[in-house]
Amino acid sequence: MRAVRYHGNRDVRIDDIPEPMCLPGFVKIAPEWCGICGSDVHEYLVGPETIPSVGEPHPITGETVPIVLGHEYAGTVVEVGEGVLGVKAGDKVAVEPIIRDNDCPTCTSGHYNLCPQLGFHGLSGYGGGLAEYSVVPGYMVHVLPDNIPTDVAALIEPLAVGWHAAKMADLRGGESVLIVGAGPIGLVTLLAVKAQGAGRVVVVELTATRKRKAAELGADLVLDPNIDDVAAVLAAEFPQGVDVAFDAGGNARTIELALASVRPRGQVVNIALWEHPVEFDMFSMLFKESNLTASCAYCNDHTEVIEALAAGTIDVAPLITGRISFDEIVTGGIEELMNNRDAHVKIIVHP
Amino acid sequence: MRAVRYHGNRDVRIDDIPEPMCLPGFVKIAPEWCGICGSDVHEYLVGPETIPSVGEPHPITGETVPIVLGHEYAGTVVEVGEGVLGVKAGDKVAVEPIIRDNDCPTCTSGHYNLCPQLGFHGLSGYGGGLAEYSVVPGYMVHVLPDNIPTDVAALIEPLAVGWHAAKMADLRGGESVLIVGAGPIGLVTLLAVKAQGAGRVVVVELTATRKRKAAELGADLVLDPNIDDVAAVLAAEFPQGVDVAFDAGGNARTIELALASVRPRGQVVNIALWEHPVEFDMFSMLFKESNLTASCAYCNDHTEVIEALAAGTIDVAPLITGRISFDEIVTGGIEELMNNRDAHVKIIVHP
Repeated sequence: MRAVRYHGNRDVRIDDIPEPMCLPGFVKIAPEWCGICGSDVHEYLVGPETIPSVGEPHPITGETVPIVLGHEYAGTVVEVGEGVLGVKAGDKVAVEPIIRDNDCPTCTSGHYNLCPQLGFHGLSGYGGGLAEYSVVPGYMVHVLPDNIPTDVAALIEPLAVGWHAAKMADLRGGESVLIVGAGPIGLVTLLAVKAQGAGRVVVVELTATRKRKAAELGADLVLDPNIDDVAAVLAAEFPQGVDVAFDAGGNARTIELALASVRPRGQVVNIALWEHPVEFDMFSMLFKESNLTASCAYCNDHTEVIEALAAGTIDVAPLITGRISFDEIVTGGIEELMNNRDAHVKIIVHP
Repeated sequence: MRAVRYHGNRDVRIDDIPEPMCLPGFVKIAPEWCGICGSDVHEYLVGPETIPSVGEPHPITGETVPIVLGHEYAGTVVEVGEGVLGVKAGDKVAVEPIIRDNDCPTCTSGHYNLCPQLGFHGLSGYGGGLAEYSVVPGYMVHVLPDNIPTDVAALIEPLAVGWHAAKMADLRGGESVLIVGAGPIGLVTLLAVKAQGAGRVVVVELTATRKRKAAELGADLVLDPNIDDVAAVLAAEFPQGVDVAFDAGGNARTIELALASVRPRGQVVNIALWEHPVEFDMFSMLFKESNLTASCAYCNDHTEVIEALAAGTIDVAPLITGRISFDEIVTGGIEELMNNRDAHVKIIVHP
C-alpha cells in the first residue's frame, strides 16, 4: 500500500509498504482525512527529534525511521480484531494516537498523556494515518456519530489539545480569559474555552491573518502588541486581572504577560512548547498567589470533543485552511505550512 | 512609653514615645512576648525595603521611619474601643498584623494577604508589638484559649505562614511531601503539613543545626545535598515522585529540585522570597502537568492555628531558641540572628 514516511530531515517520501495485518485487540482503518500537525513540520525542518532516529528506537514501539506519518485522522473501519468491542466494519472513527504502555504506572493510573516514554501512532511507529490503511489498538478508536464527517473528525485530535488545556483551567462559567498567541493551539484553545463556558475572551497576537482568524472564531477582543498598549487595555477592561491566562507563545515575554495579567489567585496555563529555559520573576506569582500549570496533549478528552462537535457547540470549519491529496503532501502540505505559516491553521490530506 | 523603633539601616533604637490612644473600633494591648522575624533582620541589614523610608510613606498608613517594630506577638488586652465585640480587658490575645484596606477590592473580597499595598502593623506603621502598648483594629485580635500561654502565642504569626502554605497544597491525608530548605519558614511548614495530615515528609537542608531541628520537629527523612544523592534517594523512596514539594529556598537549584521531585500532576508551592528572577525549564512542568503556586503570608488561618495549638497537634517549644528582654533587642536579638543564623529558629522578646 502507499504510505507517507518520514526518512529524515527534509526527507518525506511516498513509499510502497506492506499492508498492516489486523491482530486481536486491533482495528484496521482506511483513513479518509488526516491533518498535518505543526510537529510534522517541525520534524521535517529540524528533526528527527520526537521521531526516533536510527540507533535510538522508541522505547515502546522499538521502531526507528522510516516512520509512517499522520496522527490527526479519521476514516472507515475495514476490519475489527478479536476482542475489540463497540466498533464494527463500516463505522466512521477518529483515532486518538497516544500509545499506552501497560507496564507504565502513569499510563495505568489513567494519565496516559504523561507517560515518561510518551509515544504517538504516526510519529513514534506502529504506522500512521497518512497511508491507505492503518492498524491501531482498540483503545485508540472513537466511533463517530453520523453528523460528524471525517474531514471535520480529522480535527478532533488538535481540538482535544485545546479542550484539555481549557479543562486545566477548570472553568465554572463566565470567566474572563486571555490567550497569548493565536497559532493553531491558541485557536483550538479559544474554541474550547468558549465551548466550556468562558465569558469574555481576549486574544493577543501579532500577525494579521491570525488576528482575523481569532476574531472569526469568537474572540471578544483581539490585541496586537505592535499596535495596542496591551497592559493598559487589559488593566482598563479587567481592573482585577483576568481569571485565566493561556500562554500559547512559549517565550519570556508571553509567559510574563500571562502571569502579569491574571487576578489574585488567577490561573495561568502553559500550552506552548519551549525552545529554551525561561527566566521569570517569582514575585509576580507570590503577591497574587497565582497558579501556573501546563497542559500536555489530551487524556480522556476525545469523547467530550466529539459530543461538542455533534452538538454544534464548536464549529471547526474556519480551522480547515487547505485540502490536498496524498501526492501533494510535501509541496502542498508540509512546505506550504513552512512558507505560508500564518495563513494556515490546518491543512488536511485525503489519500 | 518605651518602644523599639527602626530608624534606618543598622539603626534600631529604644525610644520614648507617646502611649497610643484606643479609638472606637480598636483594641489596646500590653504585649508580653514578641518574636523577631527574618524580615526584621533583613530590614536591619539591607533596609529600609518593606519599611517605608522618608519621602515614601506607606500608601495605607501614611507613615515613614521611624517605625515601631514587632509583628509576631501576643499580650493582654488593657482597653477595648467602642464597637469591638468578642474581646474584653484582661483577655490574652494574639495579633494578626496584616492591615486591611476597606477601599481595596482584593481586601474586601477576602484575600487581604494579596492587597496590592500589603502592609503590616509592626513594619508599615500603626505601631507594633515591641512596645509597652500597642493599639490595633479589632479585626487583628484573636482571643487565646487558656491553655496557650503568650510565649507560645507569639509564634502563631509565623506558624500561620506555614499553615497557609500547607493549605495551598490542599492535603487530603497521607500525601508524601518534600520541603526544600529548613529555615524558619521551612520548619513551620513542616509542622503545618504534619498537622494537616501529610504522610512521609522529607526535608532537604545543608546546615547541621537545621537538619537536627527538622528531625526533632518530625521530618521522616532529612537529606543533605552535600552528603546524599538527593535525586537518587527520592527516586528510590518515591518512584512516581512526591505528591507535594515546597520550595523554601528561593533559588534556581531549590525550585528545580522541587519541580523535578513531584509526581505527574504533583503540586509545587513556593514559600520563599526571591532575590532574583529565576530561570527554569518549563518542560519539567509540561510533561508532568505539575502545578506551581506560591503562598503569601496568611489569610483566615489564625483560628485554625490556634485550634491546632490548643489541641496539642502542633508543639512549638522546639521553635523557641532564645528569650530576651527589651533592652537586648539589638545585640541579643537582631544581631544574634545575623551572626548565629543557623542556630536559631525564633528569638522572642519580653518587654
